[in-house]
Amino acid sequence: MARTPKGFRDCFGIEVAERGRILSLIAEVYDRYGFDPLESPAVETVESLGKFLPDLDRPNAGVFAWQDDEDANWLALRYDLTAPLARVYAQHRNELPTPYRRYAMGPVWRNEKPGPGRFRQFYQCDADTVGSASPAADTEICAMLCDALECIGVSRGDYIVRINSRRVLNGVMEVAGILDPSKPERFAEERGIVLRAIDKLDRLGHRGVRALLGEGRRDESGDFTEGARLSDDQADMVMGFVEAGRPDISATLARLRELTSGSDTGATGVDELERIGESLDVQGYGSNRIEIDPSVVRGLGYYTGPVFEAELTFDITDEKGRRRRFGSVAGGGRYDDLVKRFTGQEVPATGISLGVDRLLAALRARGVGGAMTGPVLVTVMDRDRIGDYQAMVAELRGAGIRAEMYLGNPRNFGSQLRYADRRDCPFAIIQGTDERARDCLIVKNLALGKRLATEIASNEEWRNQPAQREIPRADLVSEISGCIGAAKRMR
Amino acid sequence: MARTPKGFRDCFGIEVAERGRILSLIAEVYDRYGFDPLESPAVETVESLGKFLPDLDRPNAGVFAWQDDEDANWLALRYDLTAPLARVYAQHRNELPTPYRRYAMGPVWRNEKPGPGRFRQFYQCDADTVGSASPAADTEICAMLCDALECIGVSRGDYIVRINSRRVLNGVMEVAGILDPSKPERFAEERGIVLRAIDKLDRLGHRGVRALLGEGRRDESGDFTEGARLSDDQADMVMGFVEAGRPDISATLARLRELTSGSDTGATGVDELERIGESLDVQGYGSNRIEIDPSVVRGLGYYTGPVFEAELTFDITDEKGRRRRFGSVAGGGRYDDLVKRFTGQEVPATGISLGVDRLLAALRARGVGGAMTGPVLVTVMDRDRIGDYQAMVAELRGAGIRAEMYLGNPRNFGSQLRYADRRDCPFAIIQGTDERARDCLIVKNLALGKRLATEIASNEEWRNQPAQREIPRADLVSEISGCIGAAKRMR
Repeated sequence: MARTPKGFRDCFGIEVAERGRILSLIAEVYDRYGFDPLESPAVETVESLGKFLPDLDRPNAGVFAWQDDEDANWLALRYDLTAPLARVYAQHRNELPTPYRRYAMGPVWRNEKPGPGRFRQFYQCDADTVGSASPAADTEICAMLCDALECIGVSRGDYIVRINSRRVLNGVMEVAGILDPSKPERFAEERGIVLRAIDKLDRLGHRGVRALLGEGRRDESGDFTEGARLSDDQADMVMGFVEAGRPDISATLARLRELTSGSDTGATGVDELERIGESLDVQGYGSNRIEIDPSVVRGLGYYTGPVFEAELTFDITDEKGRRRRFGSVAGGGRYDDLVKRFTGQEVPATGISLGVDRLLAALRARGVGGAMTGPVLVTVMDRDRIGDYQAMVAELRGAGIRAEMYLGNPRNFGSQLRYADRRDCPFAIIQGTDERARDCLIVKNLALGKRLATEIASNEEWRNQPAQREIPRADLVSEISGCIGAAKRMR
Repeated sequence: MARTPKGFRDCFGIEVAERGRILSLIAEVYDRYGFDPLESPAVETVESLGKFLPDLDRPNAGVFAWQDDEDANWLALRYDLTAPLARVYAQHRNELPTPYRRYAMGPVWRNEKPGPGRFRQFYQCDADTVGSASPAADTEICAMLCDALECIGVSRGDYIVRINSRRVLNGVMEVAGILDPSKPERFAEERGIVLRAIDKLDRLGHRGVRALLGEGRRDESGDFTEGARLSDDQADMVMGFVEAGRPDISATLARLRELTSGSDTGATGVDELERIGESLDVQGYGSNRIEIDPSVVRGLGYYTGPVFEAELTFDITDEKGRRRRFGSVAGGGRYDDLVKRFTGQEVPATGISLGVDRLLAALRARGVGGAMTGPVLVTVMDRDRIGDYQAMVAELRGAGIRAEMYLGNPRNFGSQLRYADRRDCPFAIIQGTDERARDCLIVKNLALGKRLATEIASNEEWRNQPAQREIPRADLVSEISGCIGAAKRMR
């Protein structure tokens, strides 16, 4: 009965603290770039959210939705931070500056089948510029993405920001005859399948994607996914695009020009990619951080121009013990039609979304980020002298030292020490009747004690271990401050 | 169509930043007291949440709930952070230390009728100790509450933490014959009405509460609220308790002893209050911060012992232009039965919940908290030299200065300056062809410009105003750093 719902989880201590730490570091970068914070509610009308989740055809599928008692509107938990931004901008556009640059951080919810490591609530951290059609807005987002990753501790060389353009893909699809600019509604379903298939290249490989472009694909479990039913020629052209990446940017661009030859959209897309690449290079974001990669398409339907993806390039060992590349931690792009749904006018916009939980996992894998320091524990030896122990705690806290008095049943001293162990307390303070009479107390260095316990296999009486010493009562704060300082210096 | 759902709102810029700032200050205090962060999901099973919201009799009323596609469980958004804590503790009790001290901050949701200033999503910031029956745990919560309020900028003297005990009220109800310890289920409904009536003393006054203890009350709108139908004698006894507060703590305690005479529960409650008051006083939290106040009962049904409330004591002018006391910003107490619902065993617990949005409003009313500083705006005079402007922005950001290049359509210079005005930009950087030829640029001090504009009613050409000066291009960063430093010193 006492259970998190399926696909939800609790985050404890250090994980919450680390997430808070990296969110505020990223916020600092976004802030320095001139972006303003925005916090929209978790709940939106289903109508405002629209249907932009990939791979979902059921009505309201993908979101947690319910009908409001107040006005019978259907409400839903936001599934990302972009759809709410479009609503916010449309609603407040007369009061907001244009361009409007905002960042937002917080949980989003997906009503999907939960699986191992796949949760139905997770954090996103987005920055977007609404109201600018300038490619400078796109390059800025890419540069800021690099800065954000580095500021939270992802080393240069451990990540790559890959850039592509939906316009180039559209050009290829024009050439292949599955996109007719004068009849955009034709083959829309097929193009959706193509998009989602390419987005799975990492997972399914060339053969899997190729199968989805054709008749379809049966996976290991036996489930069959319908394909886009392109002709072999069409599918080859799309695969040619996906695999057009070359080690050298100008070679990639040349290949893309070839593939989109005859399509204005395609040519515009390639020009755009070239300009963004050059501009980033001039600003110091060179090929060690930025790559033009035609295989990046992003699964979401609403992108209209450049798309971006940040990938961590180091290997990790997954749950099944296999080495694999860490993979994508952020994605975004230009979406010029999202606000139009509300206002009827096209409002250009571009932005990025960071997957905070995946970034946290990545930093853990790289050993970045600290451990939670437990409090100094003032033990209770004599329950009639709670006031004395409270005074010790107050002194420590007053000096900025994390401290607490043991609040469980003090009868059993062993359970006080077990508690200290579980909390990773660095020190325990002990003052029994003897020490009280001599106006002193015992400082037990638990961290050192643990080390001694593993190094020396002896079982001496705890009072005689070198990891504890008696000090005058008056020296409490100075002694603990000194020890904590020393421990920090030793690290 | 582009609308927040009824009772929800968007938070922009400074409000988001200020909330983040006070939450991290409060987290620092909680942390120093030895509390660990916890973040449970926004979504819980309805079963886990239980029904503890006051004034709500409809099934699932008060919460946003829906049925899960996965397993047909009813899910709901949490309505506070206490019910989830009980679930977390029950679920993870074998891995968690006991006592478990945790803090949690985040939004909670109430499916209630929205009204002016009454939203359906708001922030709470809680700290609780689970697994300690010691009154030292309660006193610590009260002390920490004082420290948290002061650290975010509420001055001593501007707030009071009022303490009472449910046990004393239960004692009074025993004496009045509406609580029979051997048959606790009798008059449970009446006691619920009594609790909620007392909790409204602030709003309804003596007469309103008295009416609710009797037959009931018709409000200004004509709506009738059923009363507890106590006899006159019973109602008088309850009102006697509510109004037992005396300027002097010992007089209050003496009066409470009188009122609960003959009830063991009542006597225990008064002793408990006395001990907590003394202990806080010894720790320096005296009558200028802590008060024993029998009118504090807190509306929630689950409290079993001491209850606390923090009130801000200064006046504000409300929406209707009336002066009134700011009122309650935090509440809490001891709830020993909440975990029992899951485990069958009584687990003592005590804690506090701060209403973050109300605290933010209070700080604004007191003029505490800063303004958002807009970015330095690098204007675009020549759209072929975007790269040059980007380089200026990069230099400023590299020096830690918030800066951006104008990303809207640069054709109209006036709209660039209007944008800077709307963003509260402190400076605009201008480099046209002339300045470029002389390798210099113009720094326009917009803040000073605004001041001049209000002080001097002249309409000179902007290039001649003293609020702008030409500097060598190479001096950009040092000039702006210097100006920002000077502006800070002048404040």
